[in-house]
Amino acid sequence: MAQYSHTLDTIFQALADPTRRTVLKRLGAGPASISDLAEPFDMALPSFMKHIRCLEEGGLIHTRKEGRVRTCTINTEQFAAVEDWLSNQRAIWEGRTDRLEQFVTAKAERKA
Amino acid sequence: MAQYSHTLDTIFQALADPTRRTVLKRLGAGPASISDLAEPFDMALPSFMKHIRCLEEGGLIHTRKEGRVRTCTINTEQFAAVEDWLSNQRAIWEGRTDRLEQFVTAKAERKA
Repeated sequence: MAQYSHTLDTIFQALADPTRRTVLKRLGAGPASISDLAEPFDMALPSFMKHIRCLEEGGLIHTRKEGRVRTCTINTEQFAAVEDWLSNQRAIWEGRTDRLEQFVTAKAERKA
Repeated sequence: MAQYSHTLDTIFQALADPTRRTVLKRLGAGPASISDLAEPFDMALPSFMKHIRCLEEGGLIHTRKEGRVRTCTINTEQFAAVEDWLSNQRAIWEGRTDRLEQFVTAKAERKA
């Protein structure tokens, strides 16, 4: 549970930045090298590498070095943790809405 | 677009903490006062208030003061921004999988 919570921390942290979300969008279309990924950004390479490491820490991407080229690949499975969290959250408030509906219906029936 | 991106930044930032996610879970079941929300946490009130403000900045909750009591309510609509972002992301890589399938099928058909 603590591990799951820590995972969510690092995932949401990784998603909380426009550069990192743009990188994920690009990687959604297929693997790419660090230099190709960095190209559209007006940013020094060390700053860009911090974003890459943050995405790696969140488990949202993998990187692999071959020769002088480091290639990044998206880890689509990790997004399931966010989707699970969101659907749990939604289940809580939809459960509440259902209970409210039952209450209102029961009240209306008693009145009828 | 810049506004939407800033919104996602503040939402994901707000979600990147276990205390804040626990508060959202509690508020999913219905509105609650700050003191009720703070009760389960071993945390000074000013620190807890920082979490509440972070959730407010992300638009995930509203707060309203009546007399001496400040009540928090979840803003379920704001979660749609995260769900939209996730489904856009998923559409990118599912599009890629479809294109890959078409490519493999076309290749197999040419061979047959």
